[in-house]
Amino acid sequence: MSQSPIFERICLIGIGLIGSSIALRCRRDGLAKTIVVSTRRKETLDRARQLNLGDVYTDSVSDAVEGADCVILCTPVGTFSSIGQRIGAHLAPGCIVTDVGSVKRSVIDQLKPHMPDHVHLVPGHPVAGTEYSGPDAGFSTLFDDRWLLLTPESNASEETMAAVQKLSEFWAALGSHIDVMDPDHHDRVLAVTSHIPHLIAYNIVGTASDLEEVTQSEVIKFSASGFRDFTRIAASDPVMWRDVFLHNKDAVLEMLGRFSEDLSQLQRAVRNGDGDLLFDHFTKTREIRRGIIDAGQETELPNFGRDVVQETD
Amino acid sequence: MSQSPIFERICLIGIGLIGSSIALRCRRDGLAKTIVVSTRRKETLDRARQLNLGDVYTDSVSDAVEGADCVILCTPVGTFSSIGQRIGAHLAPGCIVTDVGSVKRSVIDQLKPHMPDHVHLVPGHPVAGTEYSGPDAGFSTLFDDRWLLLTPESNASEETMAAVQKLSEFWAALGSHIDVMDPDHHDRVLAVTSHIPHLIAYNIVGTASDLEEVTQSEVIKFSASGFRDFTRIAASDPVMWRDVFLHNKDAVLEMLGRFSEDLSQLQRAVRNGDGDLLFDHFTKTREIRRGIIDAGQETELPNFGRDVVQETD
Repeated sequence: MSQSPIFERICLIGIGLIGSSIALRCRRDGLAKTIVVSTRRKETLDRARQLNLGDVYTDSVSDAVEGADCVILCTPVGTFSSIGQRIGAHLAPGCIVTDVGSVKRSVIDQLKPHMPDHVHLVPGHPVAGTEYSGPDAGFSTLFDDRWLLLTPESNASEETMAAVQKLSEFWAALGSHIDVMDPDHHDRVLAVTSHIPHLIAYNIVGTASDLEEVTQSEVIKFSASGFRDFTRIAASDPVMWRDVFLHNKDAVLEMLGRFSEDLSQLQRAVRNGDGDLLFDHFTKTREIRRGIIDAGQETELPNFGRDVVQETD
Repeated sequence: MSQSPIFERICLIGIGLIGSSIALRCRRDGLAKTIVVSTRRKETLDRARQLNLGDVYTDSVSDAVEGADCVILCTPVGTFSSIGQRIGAHLAPGCIVTDVGSVKRSVIDQLKPHMPDHVHLVPGHPVAGTEYSGPDAGFSTLFDDRWLLLTPESNASEETMAAVQKLSEFWAALGSHIDVMDPDHHDRVLAVTSHIPHLIAYNIVGTASDLEEVTQSEVIKFSASGFRDFTRIAASDPVMWRDVFLHNKDAVLEMLGRFSEDLSQLQRAVRNGDGDLLFDHFTKTREIRRGIIDAGQETELPNFGRDVVQETD
């Protein structure tokens, strides 16, 4: 459906999976009159041009943001301070500056010092993605039925809250459900639902590839029995994830501490042959799964390929 | 396709997902002249009868195995010693005794003392399953293109190796690819590709449900970003998995030790802000994923729902 543009001139800094998906949806539905695409690498910019993702292309972020009423940072979060420094003086009055990073407190810390008073900083996080990367990976329906989290600071001005409203309208047009959340709380929630799962997946895939007595080809051959899911998660973009862990350190370390404590308890139960503790733990964890299914958030895979022998004699 | 029966009288002890799937395939393709279904719980036996899974139904395992040329234990591995004790004296000469458990050394330890000299013990493990359980969960194509591991002891007699051959023929007719493996090596390979992933998934889902500052509904709401896969794994049958951990203790504890050491290294890198170590680790783990895709073992999900911002500015 085509609708009247929400923004006059939208500037996408970074044109990977997320940036290109935003561009494609804006194009499809006419959500911005002009789309400016900016990325540092020449090959990526050329590819974006070939894919017709924007109207204006530049490798200069300071040029890119000139005259834009919305700037969206779609690069790994480790780049934000540097980008903020380069764009600050070039931002138009009333411009909404947002991002798509997976951590939010650090985004504020990195960008805020460089933002002039006349712009509105509203960090954002689309909880959406695939394991593919680059401008070719984007598709216009990526954000459909996904959560989009906006994390303005608690002391945000009325004007900034109006910007939150406008960004909500924009992301709703992209298909998302919107939630407004405190940035620190965001970082703790995502630490447990996303960051720690990724760290653990990266870790176990690393452990498996370092074994001497079990070959890599055996790991691959028999990966259907649980491991394969971890390899998919551990195939995620290394730069993006490095930056997530470096920029959500406190919440990640805290959750990791709890994870390790709990794992020690299970380990001790295995060592001591404490079947009751294992059974109770394994039963309790089914509840969250039921919640996910009840919430209609899961499409069950009919033949997932894990080891199951379900009947008790 | 219907073919001449491989076994005259097959006895399935336990009729959950795996047992019922074997029964349905045997029925479909005429792989056994007679199918005996045995399970302890009356309701399960009644349900198996309603589903027409067998020809003979009994809650007595000693009756069940009488005259069978193949007995398959399809119950959690914790039951094997007790079942072995009850069936030993009733097994017919030349009978092949096998199982579908996820650990293999323990199966030999539990069953062998009860096996008369005139039967052939050939432990087996279909690397297949879903997260569903019970006799209604079975389907005849569950084993298609899955691995089936047989783990005879290294000193197996010629007759036992003939039994390995016959079981291979049987499982090939069920659609599986067959591999013969040393039981201890099996337990180490599966510890890393299956048991540890399950323990970790159970653990993190437990950690998440115990948090005070992040609610269960938030965990469910934002589970798309990595956590959801873990909840699926952690929804696996608690009895089966309790028994796996109790019966593969040594390999599980060893692999868990390595996992924890590696995790400490990543944790330290997060604490120290060592981006290079994180990046190198996250890059290395992509190799195994490529191996899995190259081996054609993965159907990519087009929209997996994780956080990805792939483009570097």
